[in-house]
Amino acid sequence: KYFYKVLFFPDEDYPCKFYAWKGGCKLPICNFPHVETSFKLFGDYLYSARSSLDVCVYTITSLVLCEIILDVHKSGTPVRVIIDDESDNFEGSLLKKFRENGVKLRTDKSSFLMHHKFVIIDKETVMNGSFNWTRNAITANNENVFITNNPEVVKPYMEEFEKLWRYFEPN
Amino acid sequence: KYFYKVLFFPDEDYPCKFYAWKGGCKLPICNFPHVETSFKLFGDYLYSARSSLDVCVYTITSLVLCEIILDVHKSGTPVRVIIDDESDNFEGSLLKKFRENGVKLRTDKSSFLMHHKFVIIDKETVMNGSFNWTRNAITANNENVFITNNPEVVKPYMEEFEKLWRYFEPN
Ligand SMILES: [Zn+2]
Ligand SMILES: [Zn+2]
Repeated sequence: KYFYKVLFFPDEDYPCKFYAWKGGCKLPICNFPHVETSFKLFGDYLYSARSSLDVCVYTITSLVLCEIILDVHKSGTPVRVIIDDESDNFEGSLLKKFRENGVKLRTDKSSFLMHHKFVIIDKETVMNGSFNWTRNAITANNENVFITNNPEVVKPYMEEFEKLWRYFEPN
Repeated sequence: KYFYKVLFFPDEDYPCKFYAWKGGCKLPICNFPHVETSFKLFGDYLYSARSSLDVCVYTITSLVLCEIILDVHKSGTPVRVIIDDESDNFEGSLLKKFRENGVKLRTDKSSFLMHHKFVIIDKETVMNGSFNWTRNAITANNENVFITNNPEVVKPYMEEFEKLWRYFEPN
């Protein structure tokens, strides 16, 4: 009845984004592979969000993942992002881009780490593991992402998200 | 039939280890709380290992967790630890203690991160999440650990462990 899936990283390469998520690649010469990868599947789940996308992740520095979030946001799906405040100070932070585009964003207020790495799609599916949203997590590090739609798992993550969202409310 | 559990951190404090895992605390005055915490449950699962304990985690700097691993090892349960090689260079590394006591230990060989944070108990139960084995993960950071004995989840982590164990074999 419920599904359980585990993705492992690193992938050998990024998938072609047109092939992966944009309905097909028409480039005469494409530099990116047209293959299923862990990251393609990860992106598939993010793009599948219709009613909500709730992201709670220590750091986001991957341009591709930033672009996916903005695509989902622009498609009309409400997106909320919780991120560690230290990530906000990185050179070239992508959070500015989120703010400029109106993505709802909250950062932790403590000197400790908001170290979660989970996402909830449509309050129905959770993805959770070691995977920060960085380039190295995709094509270099050993990482895992566990995915399920079992409500016994989704519910506690949903509650944690709402708790932190309230707790990190801007004053 | 199968169970699904999610632990969230930080805990407010460390549990008294005698109360938690040593059959009861007899101290007239004990400085540690005698309560159930996320970390007590995490430790319960580690101590429950009988036939094997396979740890695959980016870093181990918590003395308490080091002690638990050594206790399990000394009880006769075969323990294997995979850890990132960068963790091996930390000041006061606990890995020396593992080696001296004969715990089987392998480190990744790459310049990238062995960033997993999972443990498999008796090839039957997996614990996985954002939780590195550090002091801050227990009592300071926002962290999660998902636990299940569903073989659909345990099996892929077991396969990943065996793959990395072979791959990181010392020459
Ligand atoms: Zn292409
Ligand atoms: Zn005590």
